[in-house]
Parts: sequence; C-alpha cells; structure tokens
Amino acid sequence: MSERVTPPASPEGDRLARVALALVAEPGHPELLRQVRRLGAVEVRDRLLRDRDFGPRMAAVDPDRELAAATHRGLRFVVPGDDEWPGGLDDLALAPPLQEQGEVPIGLWVRGPLRLDRLAGALAVVGSREGTTYGGEIAREIAATASRAGRVVVSGAAVGIDQAAHRGAIAVDGPTVAVLACGADRVYPPGAADLLGYLAAEGAIVSETVPAGAPMRNRFLSRNRIIAALTVGTVVVEAAARSGALSTANWAIRLNRHLMGVPGPVTSPVSCGVHELIRAGAATLTGSGAEVLEVLGVAGEDLAPVPRGPVRSQDLLSHPQRQVLDAVPLARGATEASIARTAALGVAEARALLSELHRHGLVELAGDGWRLTPRAMR
Amino acid sequence: MSERVTPPASPEGDRLARVALALVAEPGHPELLRQVRRLGAVEVRDRLLRDRDFGPRMAAVDPDRELAAATHRGLRFVVPGDDEWPGGLDDLALAPPLQEQGEVPIGLWVRGPLRLDRLAGALAVVGSREGTTYGGEIAREIAATASRAGRVVVSGAAVGIDQAAHRGAIAVDGPTVAVLACGADRVYPPGAADLLGYLAAEGAIVSETVPAGAPMRNRFLSRNRIIAALTVGTVVVEAAARSGALSTANWAIRLNRHLMGVPGPVTSPVSCGVHELIRAGAATLTGSGAEVLEVLGVAGEDLAPVPRGPVRSQDLLSHPQRQVLDAVPLARGATEASIARTAALGVAEARALLSELHRHGLVELAGDGWRLTPRAMR
Repeated sequence: MSERVTPPASPEGDRLARVALALVAEPGHPELLRQVRRLGAVEVRDRLLRDRDFGPRMAAVDPDRELAAATHRGLRFVVPGDDEWPGGLDDLALAPPLQEQGEVPIGLWVRGPLRLDRLAGALAVVGSREGTTYGGEIAREIAATASRAGRVVVSGAAVGIDQAAHRGAIAVDGPTVAVLACGADRVYPPGAADLLGYLAAEGAIVSETVPAGAPMRNRFLSRNRIIAALTVGTVVVEAAARSGALSTANWAIRLNRHLMGVPGPVTSPVSCGVHELIRAGAATLTGSGAEVLEVLGVAGEDLAPVPRGPVRSQDLLSHPQRQVLDAVPLARGATEASIARTAALGVAEARALLSELHRHGLVELAGDGWRLTPRAMR
Repeated sequence: MSERVTPPASPEGDRLARVALALVAEPGHPELLRQVRRLGAVEVRDRLLRDRDFGPRMAAVDPDRELAAATHRGLRFVVPGDDEWPGGLDDLALAPPLQEQGEVPIGLWVRGPLRLDRLAGALAVVGSREGTTYGGEIAREIAATASRAGRVVVSGAAVGIDQAAHRGAIAVDGPTVAVLACGADRVYPPGAADLLGYLAAEGAIVSETVPAGAPMRNRFLSRNRIIAALTVGTVVVEAAARSGALSTANWAIRLNRHLMGVPGPVTSPVSCGVHELIRAGAATLTGSGAEVLEVLGVAGEDLAPVPRGPVRSQDLLSHPQRQVLDAVPLARGATEASIARTAALGVAEARALLSELHRHGLVELAGDGWRLTPRAMR
C-alpha cells in the first residue's frame, strides 16, 4: 500500500467505516488502530477491501444494518469527534503497546444513559476476582466516597472487587460505568445480570468489542487499557501477583494516571501484587476514599484527615504538671521527695502537682510512692 | 561560665566524670550532652560542681563506688573512645533534638557478653505494645531472617512487637540486643524476666539510664533515639497513630537510617501509623525479612524474590496454541470455524491446536462449540 492524501470523510461516512472495521478487527490491535488514527477510518477500510486476505471479510459486513440493529438493542457507537467522546482515550495514542494491545479504540459501544463525556475526573476501582471480604468492604467504601464527591466510578463488572466497587457507588446513588471485555449487550459474568441491568438503566456499559462479541483473553487485556484511559486514577484494591488488575495498573502508569493501592496483610496472596506496586513506588498507599480523593485532588486541597490517636489528658497538661509526670516511674512507686528531685522542683510544689495528676487519672499510689497509671503510658 | 581551653582528660578520668554526670543528669538532655561533647566530661562535671543548684548533688555522688557496684552486678559503662563504642551513636551529634531529647549519650550501661561494636549493620525491629498475632508473626520472621543473614536485631523488650522481634532472633540462635528505658539491671516490663535473663547471658541489655533507674516517660523517648542510632535501619511492624514506635521512626529519618514499614489491613488501628509513614514516602513497604534485607543491602544485590503467581500451563504454550487460545470465548462455546476465523488460521490447523489445548485442560466442549475452562482464565 502506498501513502496518499486522504479526502476528509463525512462524520457519518467515518462512523460507518469505523463500524465496519470494528466488525472485522480485534479490539486493541495496535497496528490497525494506529493506521486508523493516521489515515482515517475510511481510507483504512478501503485498503482492507482491496487486501487479498481481509477483502472478502470486509466486503461481507454491512455496517448500516449492524448499526441499526445495535441501536435497536439500545446501543450507540461513540467515535472520536462525537461530543460524547471522552478525551482521555486519546492519550492511548502516546502510550506504547502492552502485551500486543494498545492505541486509541476505533469506537466504543455504549449502553445506558450516562454520557461518556461525564467521565472527566472519573476513578477506576479494580481488583481481584478472588477478592476477600476485607477487600470488598474497602472497595465499596472508596467507591461510595468518590461517588459522593461527584466522581464517576469505573470498573470491570467482574466478580469480587470490581462488583463491590460498582455496588459502593450504587449504594449512594452515584453514577458508575462498567467496561466489558465482551459485547456491551451481553450478560457476563453470568451472576452480574442485576448489576448490568441497573447500569444499562442508570449508568453505562461500555465495550470496544462488537455487540454480542464473546469475552476472550485478549479482549480482557485490551479492555483494561480502556478502564485506565477513561479515568484520572486507578485504585487497585486487591491483586495477586499476575492478576489482571495489574495490567490495568500498568496502563495507568503508561498513561500518567494516578495509581493507588490498598494494602492488606502481607500474608494475604491477593494483597501481594498491590504491595509490589507500592514497594516499587509505582502506586501510592491509600486506605480510604478520603485518601484517594486527596491523591486525585488539587495538591494541598482535599486533604484526608491524618489518622490521629485520641486526644489524651496529658496533652492538656501545664508545663509543671508534665515536668512532674515525666519524673514519675512506671513500675515501683517513687516518693514525693524523689520525684521532686528528679523534676527539679520543691517537694511541696511536686506534691500539689501530683494530686492534680491523680485527679486526671495519670498517677496512682503504690505502697508509699507514686507511679504512672496504665492510662498515662498510652 | 566562660569558655576556656580544657586540658585533655585521661581515659579513666573521663570515664569517671561521665559516670558522675550520668548519675545526676536525665538521659538525652540535649544541652548538657552537647556541652559534654564540646568541652569534655571532666570540664562539664567541674563546672556543675561549682554550680549553685547542681553543686551539692554533684558533690554527693561517688562515681568510683557506683562504677564498682555496677561492675559487681555485671554491668559495664561504655563511653566514646572505648573500642566497643558503636560509631552510629555519634551521628546523634548531627540530628536536631526531638521532643526535647537528643544528642550523643554520655555513655551506655551494658549487661551481657555481646560487644556493642558488633552492632555494625544491625537492624531495629519495633512496634506497638498492642501488636496483633499477625504483627507478632511478621516481626518474628523478619528478625529471624535478618539474624540468619548475620545482622544483630535491636529492639526495646516491650510486650508485643518488640518481644516478638527478640524471640525471632533467639529462635535462630541469633544475637539480639534490648535497649531499655530503665536501668539495664532491672526487669522491666515485669513479664520479660526470662527474655532479659537470656539477653544478659547471650546478647546484651543496654541503657542510657543509670543502674536501678526507673522507667519514666521521657526515658522511653530518649531510649528510642538510641535504638535508631545503633542500627542501620528500623522496621516498624505495627504502630497506631501516636505510638511510641513512631518516635523511633522519626529518629531513623533524622539520622538518615533506612526506615521500613510492614503494612496490614487498613481497618487495623495498629497498622494506621505504619501506613501513614509509607503513604508519606518516609518508609519503604516491606513484607518479609527478604525484602528488609534487600532494602539494607547493596543496591542491586540481596534482591528479594519478586512474588510470582504459579507457573501456568498457558505460559508453556507455543505461539500458534496461544493464538487459538486467545480466540476461544469464555462463556458460550464457539465453533471450530469461528475460532479459526478469529485466530486467522485454517480450520484443520485450529482443530489440531484445540485438541492440544484440550489435553492441557484449557478448553472444553460446550454443546457444539469450544470454550475456555476456568483454569485458562486464572
């Protein structure tokens, strides 16, 4: 094929050419998608029509009919140039392929009322299919908190962490979007019928795979790049070594998105992959929705509350009271004279201060001396 | 007081002056210790003898007798200039005080056969008194692994994580050192009699506090700086917000030591303080002794094994086998013709490859088509 100047395609001509290409090409095929981006969909389709191997398959598809059928089933095909096209996807043009997947998708099949341009500032919450109860609870809390802060929660509808994330958003009536590896009109995984029904009615189900297309291994990998590209940050809640969620994390890194990880016990295999990301400095440790929002937010604003111990009575002590407290031993009691000497105070003054500390519950009498209470050591 | 040239003290004169100062001064008093470092112990003692407030107390102490008594009880007083003096303590001269504690100690009272110059490359393993079973297990594993690698394990003998760390080292016959806030001859905490007895016989018990001195709040704070300074790195295993272990962490940072933290569930209050250290970038996440050794070791050497998932049958597939596997759907089965088309292979070739994949347990027949087995999706 020789390079030549491409006449500009009409929006509808471009859309139909993209439908035709989507029907014959696998999602995330980096070489084909790069050509589409450079030459335009119409030109690439025409070249494929002339191709000895692809020509017959290209000639056999009827994009008009497929698009009408998809519309009939409640699907729309969103392409670059549409108002609804989420700009984050264009960043995929700059990222090198990963596991032979990459590039800006030809278009996205979408089911559900949520417009994709509402995804600005969205958060991906992903994780293992073997997520624990612990991981599920954290995923739900993070999704609910992000939702309340107005961020759309994006995940993959898989059992485990993904579904917990969608449900956390739904629990607070927040918008949430599932990106599938199969056609956006399919129910997969099988147990997710209710969830997907809700998303089709209230949120959105998105896929690069053609309607009715089956979930296949490579489609999961290419799907993960869409999740990372649609969002400004990805939280990995639980992921074993080699978990699919780590491919989403990898894409978040390539796309310069915020990457966050939720820690867990080092003895938990599904926290292992997350710990590696944190340990390597690739992901920021986050333990709550508030901490996630702090990472996503403007630096210095949206600060999560720093975890603090309870305020203790000794925080409120005067300087002389503290001086005496520091001179009281922990185990065997000390006499007032000995405490006064250590605190470099007079015995009368030390005695008065000791009885103040006693009223605060910080010192107690043990035999003929004073010692600290357990409370004072906390 | 006016500055004047100090005549050099004899080693024994210096040692006795340090004993005298240790008997009247609180551990970690930064101003006094700075004067000792700058003017010498003899000069500072002589000035205090002339001081209106301190003079009578200084005059009352008998360092010769105290040192003899301490020796009789199995204690030695290690001071700067001794062969045994651990050089790491001198770094305290450069670190700013924290909570009114700081500076190089006047000397350390030591009980037990382990010489302090053996602490080069030592590791501190510290944590909460309220440590969990989980934290205790991790502390033991880290201490045991570090011990086997020839590193002395230093901790504070407190209940919880500290004692677990000492016991982890002892379990592999490794040398271990406790730094106490009370006199090195005392049994504190009360339940630690066996542990301290073992350390006195096989390792070392170290304290800046005079023999028989009681454990007091400020002595715990000044003790923590000794733990950080004696070691090349500190691992915080579990620490609530405001835990004392965080003051050791703070000293490790001030002293440019390696600081490491073990993560846990974000729902565990005693992991909260550690997570803050990791999240702030102050501590490296470490989940095992091997990972701790990697942080302490020469960069690029001593690498911990990267956690990996199990080797899977699909890792060993040929390229055409993988091509076909990627074309097999997950849910409903697909015909051989459809799989061949997706994989861009002839039907006969696809059929042969499918039966190879079937023997590997990666695909199965579902009605009249092939689909992936659960194993292929793992």
